[in-house]
Amino acid sequence: MSVLVVGSTALDSIKTPKAENPRLLGGSASHAAVAASFFAPVKMVGIVGKDFPKRYITLYKKHGIDLEGLQIADGKTFHWAGEYEVNMNNRRTLSTELGVFETFTPHLPESYKQAPYVLLANIAPALQHHVLDQVKQPKFVMADTMDLWLNIALPDLLRLIKRVDAFVLNDSEARQLTDDDNVLRALKKIHKLGPKYVIIKKGEHGSILSGPSGLFIAPAFPLERVCDPTGAGDSFVGGLLGFLASQKGSVEKNLRRAIIHGAAAASFCCEGFGLNQTTRASRKAITDRVRALEKMVAF
Amino acid sequence: MSVLVVGSTALDSIKTPKAENPRLLGGSASHAAVAASFFAPVKMVGIVGKDFPKRYITLYKKHGIDLEGLQIADGKTFHWAGEYEVNMNNRRTLSTELGVFETFTPHLPESYKQAPYVLLANIAPALQHHVLDQVKQPKFVMADTMDLWLNIALPDLLRLIKRVDAFVLNDSEARQLTDDDNVLRALKKIHKLGPKYVIIKKGEHGSILSGPSGLFIAPAFPLERVCDPTGAGDSFVGGLLGFLASQKGSVEKNLRRAIIHGAAAASFCCEGFGLNQTTRASRKAITDRVRALEKMVAF
Repeated sequence: MSVLVVGSTALDSIKTPKAENPRLLGGSASHAAVAASFFAPVKMVGIVGKDFPKRYITLYKKHGIDLEGLQIADGKTFHWAGEYEVNMNNRRTLSTELGVFETFTPHLPESYKQAPYVLLANIAPALQHHVLDQVKQPKFVMADTMDLWLNIALPDLLRLIKRVDAFVLNDSEARQLTDDDNVLRALKKIHKLGPKYVIIKKGEHGSILSGPSGLFIAPAFPLERVCDPTGAGDSFVGGLLGFLASQKGSVEKNLRRAIIHGAAAASFCCEGFGLNQTTRASRKAITDRVRALEKMVAF
Repeated sequence: MSVLVVGSTALDSIKTPKAENPRLLGGSASHAAVAASFFAPVKMVGIVGKDFPKRYITLYKKHGIDLEGLQIADGKTFHWAGEYEVNMNNRRTLSTELGVFETFTPHLPESYKQAPYVLLANIAPALQHHVLDQVKQPKFVMADTMDLWLNIALPDLLRLIKRVDAFVLNDSEARQLTDDDNVLRALKKIHKLGPKYVIIKKGEHGSILSGPSGLFIAPAFPLERVCDPTGAGDSFVGGLLGFLASQKGSVEKNLRRAIIHGAAAASFCCEGFGLNQTTRASRKAITDRVRALEKMVAF
């Protein structure tokens, strides 16, 4: 079954202690859509400017991503510039130019509205709402977010959390949202905001799912070299939802394996700048890492 | 089979944002010995002063711990005072009074020297060497340490690491020892120092084992309330080695399950001040948490 992905489509200029990479393909929708594409047909909603490099359109197409919902507007593509510290855990934003995103209203093509799996990747909650308003009876809706929206659009975000089946956020965002340092108490508090499933991402420490069948403690795929973690969280939710859409049976039954597939997809993202390594991955390569993780957690 | 435990035997005065607890039973040997005692007979080596409360001797005895190697010396028991911050992740030492530990030389009773499992819990590496010099052909030797010894006794510690089968340290210590932020590279560098098995403890994020059969990513037992994490790492290695000593078959075969038993034992330690909750645990209670962890990582 297909996955509808909405999120940002951007150009990222990323500095790390070792390299500088201008105008990489980035944005939450790009990372999530490519990761999902290894498992299921993807329909992407987003906006880019007239300056958006043709090679990135080619890359989307190479992954079979349906671009009917990608608007190409007068103006500049959303551009984010950031810098990572030596240990790759801390990053700071150098500049954000919204460009065409300033006036973006996502319009879903008719063919998108029946998508059974909906991924509201990280973007302003108002836009996530707007997409959700247009889809018809989706089977499963998952939303991701970032600290920015907790800071500047909390009421929109709280309304959104009520509307989704699964809500994903990282550990520092969970702390900020719940004012609680303890991950179990934070999960409980977020459930009270609405969603059946809550996933807290912990970067290299993996993630934790809370749902009707209890907790699932998921590892990250350990990497010896982390090149650029930008987009890892987006690849995680993309791989997760793509895998879920590819499986028969209930979400409840498949969600844990889906999380592991997301973790494996995210590991490829971290190994290259932008989408450089994710785009070279394959369903088989991801599955190999899932198998490796299976061995690494068995006791 | 029995476990020989050497380490500190101390009185701990612990302040948390919620409570203050003077002169609790503490020290790496106390925590490790009690955790190990749920699985195997324990022989403890340590020293206390004449001020050491009788009730703590009673507690050791309640757990069947062999105290022939516990010296009771003129002078004061080692006393540590520390304070935890709100999130329980950072602690600072308020005072350290070595007392009788200043002149401690561990002497192993004859009945201790044949112990097949040896746990060199956190204490000065010179003392760990001294114990190791006295044991005869142990089956398995595991050493734990702390940042203090990296700072003031690194040559002794490096000599010790060569002599043990398994070396345990936490993530920040691994970074300090290897000058490497990446856990996989740090594990490789520590293997080069000698030990067949290396375990890096990551607190609430669990631990990671590296050995001949690859990596094992182990979860911590998630807790809704952490009362006092002092001694959690000691309980972890104690439970681990106690379980290992209780099992038939090779260390290689049993080590992963042993780590999970250590994690479960450590979770009880965190739920009370000092040894208050560990001492109320049981083999069954620990095994129940191991089973719960099994469910939490299955996919």
